[in-house]
Amino acid sequence: MNVIVDFSVVPIGVGVSVSKYVVACQRVLDDAGLKTNLHAYGANVEGSWDEVFGAIKKCHEVVHEMGAPRVSTVIKAGTRTDRDQSLDDKVRSVESKLERSG
Amino acid sequence: MNVIVDFSVVPIGVGVSVSKYVVACQRVLDDAGLKTNLHAYGANVEGSWDEVFGAIKKCHEVVHEMGAPRVSTVIKAGTRTDRDQSLDDKVRSVESKLERSG
Amino acid sequence: MNVIVDFSVVPIGVGVSVSKYVVACQRVLDDAGLKTNLHAYGANVEGSWDEVFGAIKKCHEVVHEMGAPRVSTVIKAGTRTDRDQSLDDKVRSVESKLERSG
Amino acid sequence: MNVIVDFSVVPIGVGVSVSKYVVACQRVLDDAGLKTNLHAYGANVEGSWDEVFGAIKKCHEVVHEMGAPRVSTVIKAGTRTDRDQSLDDKVRSVESKLERSG
Repeated sequence: MNVIVDFSVVPIGVGVSVSKYVVACQRVLDDAGLKTNLHAYGANVEGSWDEVFGAIKKCHEVVHEMGAPRVSTVIKAGTRTDRDQSLDDKVRSVESKLERSG
Repeated sequence: MNVIVDFSVVPIGVGVSVSKYVVACQRVLDDAGLKTNLHAYGANVEGSWDEVFGAIKKCHEVVHEMGAPRVSTVIKAGTRTDRDQSLDDKVRSVESKLERSG
Repeated sequence: MNVIVDFSVVPIGVGVSVSKYVVACQRVLDDAGLKTNLHAYGANVEGSWDEVFGAIKKCHEVVHEMGAPRVSTVIKAGTRTDRDQSLDDKVRSVESKLERSG
Repeated sequence: MNVIVDFSVVPIGVGVSVSKYVVACQRVLDDAGLKTNLHAYGANVEGSWDEVFGAIKKCHEVVHEMGAPRVSTVIKAGTRTDRDQSLDDKVRSVESKLERSG
């Protein structure tokens, strides 16, 4: 089962600057060979369910190892059985309709 | 690694009434022996990372088997290394402060 | 337009214990006269769109005034035009099906 | 008070294809003059609190007018008082650290 995920991480108890923890998670996703798209509020991730959620677990572990006593993530997970869909498909589907009606 | 999760599921493409799918997911969580607390917008779930996320994957599979072509979930996941915390602790921590200051 | 919301708040840059900020937000919701249901990962809130989102804005302001340099909230908002629905209805709808099938 | 938001919308009860509703919301955000960045799981939006949340309310109204009996959105809202930050800043902060450590 493939999944398209949106994923954001907030370390708690490490001060106001959280970007180095976000970077560490992004590296975990990259190292797992997952297709990702970074945006201002997290990252889109595409892959098999087990690979994607394995990487998210690893991200929690890495951020704790970096010293964060609490880690809070928000994950939106979408699966579909009617057809395959990629990250790029999802954006194109909206963008093409915006252009036609613009 | 233990995790406290908030989990909600929206099946897409099956009409306006979604409660039977929510019920099926609740049953998956119960069958997995996980501690849960149902609320109006999802459920809190407490357990080991692998058990909780295994149950969430199973919920996607069950809702697809019931006929939903798309399943969208939102998961908030919190882990902490500074101390153990249960679902009940989290609520009590807020409620006790509300009473003292009320 | 009425709305049923699930709302959680994370202050960033104030250390590992966040419950006093959650309490302050809960008080804002109560003072606004909104029906709420606290759970381990936030609160369900029911009311008119403008009242509910006015209270959420006020919560951000109050948490900043308490000293948090960053405030991050997650809001799930549901509206429906087919019929009225309350917080209690949503939980009862699931619980009654769980009992029948249990 | 400025806010950076991540916003996604799911119409319920209108079948499996939801992109035309997403397009309508994107148009509402654009018409409000808000800076947005579309991604595969929603859109980042930047602006004053009242303008951003006014547009999100309008999005719910428009999607109902298009025929969706239920509309469910997920909103992540971040405010900060320590400094100004834009959508572009947030992404650059992570990307620059990725490059340095890559």
